Amino acid sequence: MATPLPGDPRLARLSLNQRTTARWSLREAVDGCVAAGIGSIGVWREPVADTGLEAAARMIRDAGLRVSSLCRGGFFTSADRAARAAAHDDNLAALDEAAALGCDVLVLVPGGLPEGDRDIAGARDRVAEAVAALVPGARERGVRLGIEPMHPIFAADRGVISTLGQALDIAEQHPAEVVGVVVDTFHVWWEPGVLEQIARAGRRIVSYQVCEWITPLPADSLLSRGMMGDGHIDFGSLTRAVAAAGYTGDVEVEIFNADVWAAPGADVVATLARRYAEIVEPHL
Amino acid sequence: MATPLPGDPRLARLSLNQRTTARWSLREAVDGCVAAGIGSIGVWREPVADTGLEAAARMIRDAGLRVSSLCRGGFFTSADRAARAAAHDDNLAALDEAAALGCDVLVLVPGGLPEGDRDIAGARDRVAEAVAALVPGARERGVRLGIEPMHPIFAADRGVISTLGQALDIAEQHPAEVVGVVVDTFHVWWEPGVLEQIARAGRRIVSYQVCEWITPLPADSLLSRGMMGDGHIDFGSLTRAVAAAGYTGDVEVEIFNADVWAAPGADVVATLARRYAEIVEPHL
Repeated sequence: MATPLPGDPRLARLSLNQRTTARWSLREAVDGCVAAGIGSIGVWREPVADTGLEAAARMIRDAGLRVSSLCRGGFFTSADRAARAAAHDDNLAALDEAAALGCDVLVLVPGGLPEGDRDIAGARDRVAEAVAALVPGARERGVRLGIEPMHPIFAADRGVISTLGQALDIAEQHPAEVVGVVVDTFHVWWEPGVLEQIARAGRRIVSYQVCEWITPLPADSLLSRGMMGDGHIDFGSLTRAVAAAGYTGDVEVEIFNADVWAAPGADVVATLARRYAEIVEPHL
Repeated sequence: MATPLPGDPRLARLSLNQRTTARWSLREAVDGCVAAGIGSIGVWREPVADTGLEAAARMIRDAGLRVSSLCRGGFFTSADRAARAAAHDDNLAALDEAAALGCDVLVLVPGGLPEGDRDIAGARDRVAEAVAALVPGARERGVRLGIEPMHPIFAADRGVISTLGQALDIAEQHPAEVVGVVVDTFHVWWEPGVLEQIARAGRRIVSYQVCEWITPLPADSLLSRGMMGDGHIDFGSLTRAVAAAGYTGDVEVEIFNADVWAAPGADVVATLARRYAEIVEPHL
């Protein structure tokens, strides 16, 4: 398949998550999206801070891009009260940044087990409490909280919320216009009953992210995600379920992978646009 | 803590799974158990075949050891009918071997997605069908089938049954004296509601295996298991739940780890006996 050109309607909902082209600055990523005809970008707080919040917002706006999500808030699981209060404040700052960027979704990475702590049920309870505490601030700013369930490979050190079902158990304690979930194919593809959980999520899906589970798994588990089509995930059934649930937003490609990061950004963007048009978009 | 000596009552239910001391022959593993005062061994089909089935059975019996489990049957997920029939026959052979070894548990590794196949729900259905087909053979031989749910890190390439809940959904279609589940801490520690699932399993728990989830995760995911106490798993709550469910069998230590395999076998056995006595046994 040829790489879709700018203006191709199949690209209408595609978003480049900045981490897919990790070596690019925000400026380069914005320019790369424009050059490829991608109308949306998922941005990260660190490169936004490097650019300056106002300058970043202006740069993205001037380029005519949407901001599909801000990554990332969360990290709620510290056992220390002061550290949890600091995390709360940091999440409020992230909500301010999202609002300034014209972005209505803050992605929440739950956080892992604290050092030496083996009580995963307790850590999960703290995530639920921290989300509840953020609801008023999110509502005030008009930004939705997206709880991201994470593959159990990250349960110890990154995200103690392991299934879409668990994320929904937390989200459903709050209004759908304030608390939703992030569906990332890498994290949820294996989940028993995942299609039913996606249906259950309905309008609570605030972000749909696509990347691939590949084997053999790369050595660094944090960089173990692949390009769609190179692995084992059935993007058809997951994407159809997300669409059937009522999701009409952008679809972010977010790939953490050392080989992808080593390749020229424009080549990566061309590949992902092609794979997206081939494997994902037809099912939306 | 000092290493428990032979005769220490805390060792009464400890079993050495052969793969923990992978460089040892069956003879060395049997002698290593006897020297350390470990009364039970979990054996693998390959070293048993190397020794010869009758000779292996005699060797283990003469040493006075129990065989806590035979690893492994399963690998049920091929999309090809002839390959599935071959897997069925191979599992019948494994049941014969278990019976000859005086072992009443065959561990079933479900198998991963076939090459190029992205239909995980279909693969899971084939596991359920294959288990059902094995029930008469298992009953005749007096060997219980132990379905082993595997951590989702292995969902693509090794075990499509990802939770204890899923394994029980399959097992419960058959009599408890024929089909049970293997509870391996590495595979299930992260599972939402795992303590309730262990209670649900009750007498269907045919094997309890302990090893650790460590971070950073070792580069080879197949060798990513750690020594109890070196990682993030709460062995207390899991072990108490297994005991409360009515499990009275042996507790296997099964560690796949390149560093463990590189160490002298007797040192590994001493360490695991100490850690087991400290972290696991008090909760039985």
